[in-house]
Amino acid sequence: MKTHIDCIPCLVKQALNAVQLAGADELLQEQALRDILIKISRMDMSASPPEMGAEIHRLVRKMTGRDDPYSDLKDRYNRFAMDAYPRFKQLIAASPNPLETAVRLAIAGNIIDFGANLEINQAVVDRTIEASLTAVPFGDIKEFFMAVSNAEKILYLADNTGEIVFDRLLIEEIGPDRVTVAVRGGPVINDATMDDARFCGLTDMVDVVDNGADIPGTILDACSDSFIRSFQEADLIVSKGQGNYETLSETSVNRNVYFLFKTKCTVAARDIGCEVGRLVARKIIADTLNS
Amino acid sequence: MKTHIDCIPCLVKQALNAVQLAGADELLQEQALRDILIKISRMDMSASPPEMGAEIHRLVRKMTGRDDPYSDLKDRYNRFAMDAYPRFKQLIAASPNPLETAVRLAIAGNIIDFGANLEINQAVVDRTIEASLTAVPFGDIKEFFMAVSNAEKILYLADNTGEIVFDRLLIEEIGPDRVTVAVRGGPVINDATMDDARFCGLTDMVDVVDNGADIPGTILDACSDSFIRSFQEADLIVSKGQGNYETLSETSVNRNVYFLFKTKCTVAARDIGCEVGRLVARKIIADTLNS
Repeated sequence: MKTHIDCIPCLVKQALNAVQLAGADELLQEQALRDILIKISRMDMSASPPEMGAEIHRLVRKMTGRDDPYSDLKDRYNRFAMDAYPRFKQLIAASPNPLETAVRLAIAGNIIDFGANLEINQAVVDRTIEASLTAVPFGDIKEFFMAVSNAEKILYLADNTGEIVFDRLLIEEIGPDRVTVAVRGGPVINDATMDDARFCGLTDMVDVVDNGADIPGTILDACSDSFIRSFQEADLIVSKGQGNYETLSETSVNRNVYFLFKTKCTVAARDIGCEVGRLVARKIIADTLNS
Repeated sequence: MKTHIDCIPCLVKQALNAVQLAGADELLQEQALRDILIKISRMDMSASPPEMGAEIHRLVRKMTGRDDPYSDLKDRYNRFAMDAYPRFKQLIAASPNPLETAVRLAIAGNIIDFGANLEINQAVVDRTIEASLTAVPFGDIKEFFMAVSNAEKILYLADNTGEIVFDRLLIEEIGPDRVTVAVRGGPVINDATMDDARFCGLTDMVDVVDNGADIPGTILDACSDSFIRSFQEADLIVSKGQGNYETLSETSVNRNVYFLFKTKCTVAARDIGCEVGRLVARKIIADTLNS
């Protein structure tokens, strides 16, 4: 997905959040924001928003000297989701269709996203979960089940901290044997890295690889060779979150990619063809192999 | 009020709205936004946000060739408010304290502000009006009455289109004889100009002057000599809206300035010392005469 001018205020807002979370003094925050505005003024609009996001967050880390400004928040949301894990595990077990419920919860968990919204709380999560159980998805969850049951090697691209606990719930339903989980190669916003996969117990359950990049999405050209191999060898790729959609939607791969996310803004919603706030469970097959 | 880095995403969002409303082609919109980002990256943070806003909107007008990108929206909101006028007139007449109700409605009318929020509708206005009737104001409406009843020359600084109809309702309660209304000297965002004062019937009722500036606030150094004279001669200045607060709050004038507005963001709310969304009716007296 290309960047739209509508993305620009959002990128600026995200930059402001990052410099403030980094806890630098006010003058340094102001200088970092000025530098980021110049960077955004020169951005390549044919690139996807997460590419610019990655550049912004690299600059914030460099200028503030904080390797991971979101670490406290990430920790808080991982704990928040792990505390809720037993309740959601039971909700899935008690459901007439556990796999479908797990898919819906995994998509709902995608609202735990500091990129789009710094403020999130128990009530918001509960309301989102509740609504997700009956919402009409954009796409076809049953078709997703078929793809899952036919696949031998599934690569699951995780998105955010906190949300990754919901991914664990879905992976437990899919059955962990065929699944490899990929996380980001380095801290960026609240995206899940190896530490988060470890914290929520995923590393004890499945193979977890990092993609070698500090981008809040998946840009194959920036990923490690070993990640690209996993990507090419998988016969089903489950792509969680809007950042992975934004970066993979136009990648010409002959992989089966199922996108699971909640549309968080008009740009992404317009791009995929539905309204803001919809649960998306949709496959995109492109023509040619990339990389 | 100085600009805070929290204002920057808001200025960028406002710039985006303006270039899109100007209806230029997408490439020109993108170029205008890039130029505005560079301008904001160099801004003087000791200036008030409306000063930067004015520069942004001048650039949009120049680059798009549209003198007044908000003209259709302004027209729509003037009509919207004039259609509601008889209903609010009756609400004030039926109230046990008409002047107090008129003050509350005038402040509530301040939500019709495209600077802060492009989307506004009947339901939002109705909810705001309803809430304003019983809300606890920040400041003292009775003290404002006293100032009004003691004043011989009142200068009423209008803020936005649509909202100016609510100002008319308040001026009718104050009694138009002692009142001069000031509007902006040229189009900027949705701020009220002479055309809007004429449309809502204010020019038939009171003296209306323009302040000679195209700034969404009141910066005396940029205003015409005749406006500054009116400002100096008034013994009470009623300053409507957040833009007028942001530009006049630190002006050292020995005028009695009563600020009537609804706090629309954390920066202004923090500056004046209350929460976002409060009705403000507050006097500020500074020490020395400016200009």
